[in-house]
Amino acid sequence: MKKLVIAYSGGLDTSYCAVSLSKAGYEVHAVSVNTGGFTSEEIKKIEAKALKMGVATYQNIDAIQSYYQKVIKYLIYGNVLKNNTYPLSVSAERIIQAIEIVQYAKSINAQYIAHGSTGAGNDQVRFDMIFQTLAPEIEIITPIRDGKLTRQEEIDYLKSNGIEMPWDKAKYSINQGLWGTSVGGKETLTSQNPLPESAYPSQLKKGVGEKVILSFEKGEFVALNSTKNSPEKNIELLNKLASAYAIGRDIHVGDTIVGIKGRVGFEAAAALIIIKAHHLLEKHTLTKWQLQHKEYLSSFYGMHLHEGLYLDPVMRDTEAFLESSQAKVSGNVVVSLKPYHFMLDGIESKHDLMNAKFGSYGEENKGWTAEEAKGFIKIFGNQNKIYQQVNSES
Amino acid sequence: MKKLVIAYSGGLDTSYCAVSLSKAGYEVHAVSVNTGGFTSEEIKKIEAKALKMGVATYQNIDAIQSYYQKVIKYLIYGNVLKNNTYPLSVSAERIIQAIEIVQYAKSINAQYIAHGSTGAGNDQVRFDMIFQTLAPEIEIITPIRDGKLTRQEEIDYLKSNGIEMPWDKAKYSINQGLWGTSVGGKETLTSQNPLPESAYPSQLKKGVGEKVILSFEKGEFVALNSTKNSPEKNIELLNKLASAYAIGRDIHVGDTIVGIKGRVGFEAAAALIIIKAHHLLEKHTLTKWQLQHKEYLSSFYGMHLHEGLYLDPVMRDTEAFLESSQAKVSGNVVVSLKPYHFMLDGIESKHDLMNAKFGSYGEENKGWTAEEAKGFIKIFGNQNKIYQQVNSES
Amino acid sequence: MKKLVIAYSGGLDTSYCAVSLSKAGYEVHAVSVNTGGFTSEEIKKIEAKALKMGVATYQNIDAIQSYYQKVIKYLIYGNVLKNNTYPLSVSAERIIQAIEIVQYAKSINAQYIAHGSTGAGNDQVRFDMIFQTLAPEIEIITPIRDGKLTRQEEIDYLKSNGIEMPWDKAKYSINQGLWGTSVGGKETLTSQNPLPESAYPSQLKKGVGEKVILSFEKGEFVALNSTKNSPEKNIELLNKLASAYAIGRDIHVGDTIVGIKGRVGFEAAAALIIIKAHHLLEKHTLTKWQLQHKEYLSSFYGMHLHEGLYLDPVMRDTEAFLESSQAKVSGNVVVSLKPYHFMLDGIESKHDLMNAKFGSYGEENKGWTAEEAKGFIKIFGNQNKIYQQVNSES
Amino acid sequence: MKKLVIAYSGGLDTSYCAVSLSKAGYEVHAVSVNTGGFTSEEIKKIEAKALKMGVATYQNIDAIQSYYQKVIKYLIYGNVLKNNTYPLSVSAERIIQAIEIVQYAKSINAQYIAHGSTGAGNDQVRFDMIFQTLAPEIEIITPIRDGKLTRQEEIDYLKSNGIEMPWDKAKYSINQGLWGTSVGGKETLTSQNPLPESAYPSQLKKGVGEKVILSFEKGEFVALNSTKNSPEKNIELLNKLASAYAIGRDIHVGDTIVGIKGRVGFEAAAALIIIKAHHLLEKHTLTKWQLQHKEYLSSFYGMHLHEGLYLDPVMRDTEAFLESSQAKVSGNVVVSLKPYHFMLDGIESKHDLMNAKFGSYGEENKGWTAEEAKGFIKIFGNQNKIYQQVNSES
Repeated sequence: MKKLVIAYSGGLDTSYCAVSLSKAGYEVHAVSVNTGGFTSEEIKKIEAKALKMGVATYQNIDAIQSYYQKVIKYLIYGNVLKNNTYPLSVSAERIIQAIEIVQYAKSINAQYIAHGSTGAGNDQVRFDMIFQTLAPEIEIITPIRDGKLTRQEEIDYLKSNGIEMPWDKAKYSINQGLWGTSVGGKETLTSQNPLPESAYPSQLKKGVGEKVILSFEKGEFVALNSTKNSPEKNIELLNKLASAYAIGRDIHVGDTIVGIKGRVGFEAAAALIIIKAHHLLEKHTLTKWQLQHKEYLSSFYGMHLHEGLYLDPVMRDTEAFLESSQAKVSGNVVVSLKPYHFMLDGIESKHDLMNAKFGSYGEENKGWTAEEAKGFIKIFGNQNKIYQQVNSES
Repeated sequence: MKKLVIAYSGGLDTSYCAVSLSKAGYEVHAVSVNTGGFTSEEIKKIEAKALKMGVATYQNIDAIQSYYQKVIKYLIYGNVLKNNTYPLSVSAERIIQAIEIVQYAKSINAQYIAHGSTGAGNDQVRFDMIFQTLAPEIEIITPIRDGKLTRQEEIDYLKSNGIEMPWDKAKYSINQGLWGTSVGGKETLTSQNPLPESAYPSQLKKGVGEKVILSFEKGEFVALNSTKNSPEKNIELLNKLASAYAIGRDIHVGDTIVGIKGRVGFEAAAALIIIKAHHLLEKHTLTKWQLQHKEYLSSFYGMHLHEGLYLDPVMRDTEAFLESSQAKVSGNVVVSLKPYHFMLDGIESKHDLMNAKFGSYGEENKGWTAEEAKGFIKIFGNQNKIYQQVNSES
Repeated sequence: MKKLVIAYSGGLDTSYCAVSLSKAGYEVHAVSVNTGGFTSEEIKKIEAKALKMGVATYQNIDAIQSYYQKVIKYLIYGNVLKNNTYPLSVSAERIIQAIEIVQYAKSINAQYIAHGSTGAGNDQVRFDMIFQTLAPEIEIITPIRDGKLTRQEEIDYLKSNGIEMPWDKAKYSINQGLWGTSVGGKETLTSQNPLPESAYPSQLKKGVGEKVILSFEKGEFVALNSTKNSPEKNIELLNKLASAYAIGRDIHVGDTIVGIKGRVGFEAAAALIIIKAHHLLEKHTLTKWQLQHKEYLSSFYGMHLHEGLYLDPVMRDTEAFLESSQAKVSGNVVVSLKPYHFMLDGIESKHDLMNAKFGSYGEENKGWTAEEAKGFIKIFGNQNKIYQQVNSES
Repeated sequence: MKKLVIAYSGGLDTSYCAVSLSKAGYEVHAVSVNTGGFTSEEIKKIEAKALKMGVATYQNIDAIQSYYQKVIKYLIYGNVLKNNTYPLSVSAERIIQAIEIVQYAKSINAQYIAHGSTGAGNDQVRFDMIFQTLAPEIEIITPIRDGKLTRQEEIDYLKSNGIEMPWDKAKYSINQGLWGTSVGGKETLTSQNPLPESAYPSQLKKGVGEKVILSFEKGEFVALNSTKNSPEKNIELLNKLASAYAIGRDIHVGDTIVGIKGRVGFEAAAALIIIKAHHLLEKHTLTKWQLQHKEYLSSFYGMHLHEGLYLDPVMRDTEAFLESSQAKVSGNVVVSLKPYHFMLDGIESKHDLMNAKFGSYGEENKGWTAEEAKGFIKIFGNQNKIYQQVNSES
């Protein structure tokens, strides 16, 4: 029989796919990949729904740790914010989901993978490319992209197959995961307006503010407020803490892989705080040229990841650079959480290059004399002086 | 007689220089350069002080417009934030001050220029390099760098020369200008602690929040709330508005030109709002590759400016790129000012590339079919697929 | 009637297109674009052939000057060699041909443009993208890409339509233009072997060698051996001279736009000599940072041009940078032509920054003292010293 | 007693230093570092000379392997040619020499290191910076830089101390090492003229030409003509072979660390052949983005190395990137050696991405259909089309 794995979310689109593919003679195995967005209750609900759609099996894959190890870690090392704004919450998730799904499909010898993406966006590119690269022998089936059915047509189809459920269309399309939650719809479809406060998943609950301490060890977020945990757990805990202040909201406008501009709201308290705190620690512990070249590579790392090129070997090369750069990025960063925003208070690190022993900026210098400073300036400025003189004469 | 121009600020150091250089037989011409930090009352006070020090002449140069035209404009075009944090408020000012001073010195045929920088920091490098490049025939004299006197020794010297004034040392050293105010001292001398709220020049005065509209024309900030003015005036007005919300505070840690790390607080409400608003408008109006290559060039533009290389011709080349990139960066950006932070609401531009006519992200696409999308993905993914296949076989 | 413009080369493929499109009811207007590859006799032959195919009109467009002004000029400014090897001879031509063809089509109100590219390579991408961008209202027709006929089927079709001609398939596919000649076939289809000497269009005719002087004015090649001419004429003349030495042969292996690797031989004596000579003049006249940032931008300029993104506005921005960078790139470069290779002898320029007045490298320095040099080194090395000390202690 | 290590070359300058420092009361330990430039006879001569100068001990350090492992390997991985010309032969050597000398000085508990560099060039910067970084407790002594004696004064001084030897000044200053030989003097002091053939160390001995096979394994040059050897041995053997054809001559003009331009001739047959062969293999085995980002990083790697920043941790990060990128750079490259030049014939690699299975460039494509190609082009061109349409309307 034709064995098929479907990336199943419990929504109308993938439910329609599950049913229609079963009817079309496929043995449908539903799988969902948890990258931090589902509670165990939600997973149970998805499972129940999947079975209701008549799938042969349902499997939830817990990918939180692999998500951190394969992608988030490097996004932190690189302080990656697409266009200086967006932590790539969704882009990063899709990559891991695709990898987990294709591995699962191979493990059960499926000949087909189905997903519910439309033909309009980024996700189809990420899914298809990773599936095609890692399993060229598996055929990809995309009923939503191919069929262009309306919601009503899908609902009617399900009803005619005996499945009657409330399929409410949420006002905003929400995608939640360990590295942030995206919020799309209404206002984000045009350029002018912000999302209303109510559209964001977290609402302001605390007004006073508090300080948190993030501890990093070679660039990894190893402890929150002096309690050690796995980095992925720390991310989750920090996110809970910071969400009470409604921190981390913004709207991203960016270039999709298909060449159009896309706009999406997001809330990513932990991601933004960690990246800014980590970056501050780097400003104290890395050299000027480490900071500069990391910026170039990290910006492209984000672009390639966003565009589904995660499997390009240049990503592994970049990760090797980033990993090496983190050798001394260890220490504590104190962050003040406040309503709707946060401030970086300062850092403490035994690798801190800002060290009074070697001269303090703007104060009396201990490391060199006035004559040495003048010698430095004279020679440092040589080329510009020569350029000016040669070209003012000529 | 030996004609000397001194960069005079009215502080103890340059007052000491003015007196001691006069005594040493120089004809001392004091000059201060206003880059937006002085009111006319303050200028009068500096003038009175200068004359009290026995200088031959005093001249204040209004450099606000040239500051905008020569530097700030390009910092906006490039969305330049050093290490993604600092708008280079002081670095940029020093360049313009140096240029204005050397031009003034040449105009009065001075043979000497004196400045009050120490040997520890960035300013000496910027001043010396620009003076040496634009006027190699003029000798630079730096009594503070050379002499290493204590404050008390300077005060005593002035007293012994009949000048008795209160020379209070401020708790924080403040440098104010059109593109931001820096705040250094105490906490910024080490890495751990933030500045206290009271150290920042502006204090929270409004709690409710308000929306402002920034209008850009080819990248220049031409109107605030629909009232047209010169960009430099708009910057000033926006800064006044936003300062009431205590917006724009942060601490920068960066690499000085002399190789040590330096930490400095700053408040730059207008600079941060303008850069973020301008960048958002660019995300809507520029192509992916414009955004990417601007990032590379702007980052280096900031580094070179910071390091005093403003006169390197590569800066003119970069400005040509940036100028060209702004051809379509016109439109309005709405910003919500709130206590201690701001949010970008959205933009309106006739050059907005996010245009529903060509397909909306994540929605039903109008511009291409499912088959075309599949063809795109297949070929876009070719190289990674080939790489995987060649290297899994081998 | 349905007006159609066909990019006509006189070869079998485009002849087949011309005839079959006429038969299909189109009013076929043949056009060829001369980017330096055709003599006037060859153009006459193409015209005769076109008319024999029954086209309504034939037009040859002389695009040599626009080719230089729109593309080659910037390839020289940027010293662009794809992967440090290939002067982009063909890539650059296709862009100009596409632009000229679409302008012509619009000028005669054609509703269709046909071209003879296959679906395998780069040219279809360049043609389609430029046509679609500049004339979205014009439909593109590509019988070769769509039909997949064999040569014999095409020949038979023409014969059955009364056109009997010798359609010899050349052993190598040659594409000639002002910026070089490409040679593809047989050996270039695999990775192992070089092209035989006889495959290259020029053969060694001179054994002794000679010196030539290239004069540049703001980066443009304005005179050869002290005789002034337009740059495009100088390129042609230099190519003739250097081809007698069989200079400029190489094989390029690169990434096609469609993701596969492609290998192609080329002969581009003038292009290689001019780029290397121009680059040498730049090494003498530009600052370190101009050279460095030009390298980044030029490399991407070549990549984008190669991939058909010539109309992306980032190309105009880059051209603005490059144009600005050439302000002082004026002077003479002496080149020794020798059998199969050339050597750069030296340059003469009033903008030469290598000027004994400011100190000679490796000789006794005149510009600074030993103490100044030591001060420079001490401070220039500060960060690495601090890094080492902080991190060896910790 | 004051223990001092001197970097001793056997030349007049360091001989003068050795004698005068001994007289000044230092216990002088002479050390020379062989980076591939000395035969064992030459080393014996240097030793004899050193002892004649009255040094306490003489030590030659064989650093060929460490030179390859620490620097040359990465220069090959990165295809590093400064300004696309110079393999950094001397720059790279100085770094290794400095490291070996400082390690030796520490091992014998020396309190001083002396070297013979002048204050005019790059070498003093490289030596001082590495000494100061790795051994801040050791004092650096530079009699030549400080003393500014003429050759005659040095000769007279030695004579007056009983040392009478012929100290001929060579017409050209030659520096030989594993990665190339530099030739400076006379013509290289100005910009106009090439070095005469006779100035180059190798002269044309063979006229016919021959093919050589370079085998790479993960980027390392592991075999020459199918005979395995250590990479450093292969470099030496290839250099001997290729020198008979007078291959690898050129003149480099570059930016010195002290801001002036410097010009130097060099002969580096093996370096140039290996880099070009290795690069060709990479073009076949790396992805487009690996090639692109390697170019950025390698260019800066060369700049930083040249400027003595070898100990900056960014160099280790870059090496990690480069090492990772070489995972599949294995295979054979055939090179044709000819009089004064060489040609790359082709490569053979099981990792070759140019593989007919996936479609051949310019030929009938097997990997995708015409419709898929059209879909690709349509979407790939989306942004430029939208940009054009939005901005032609507005």
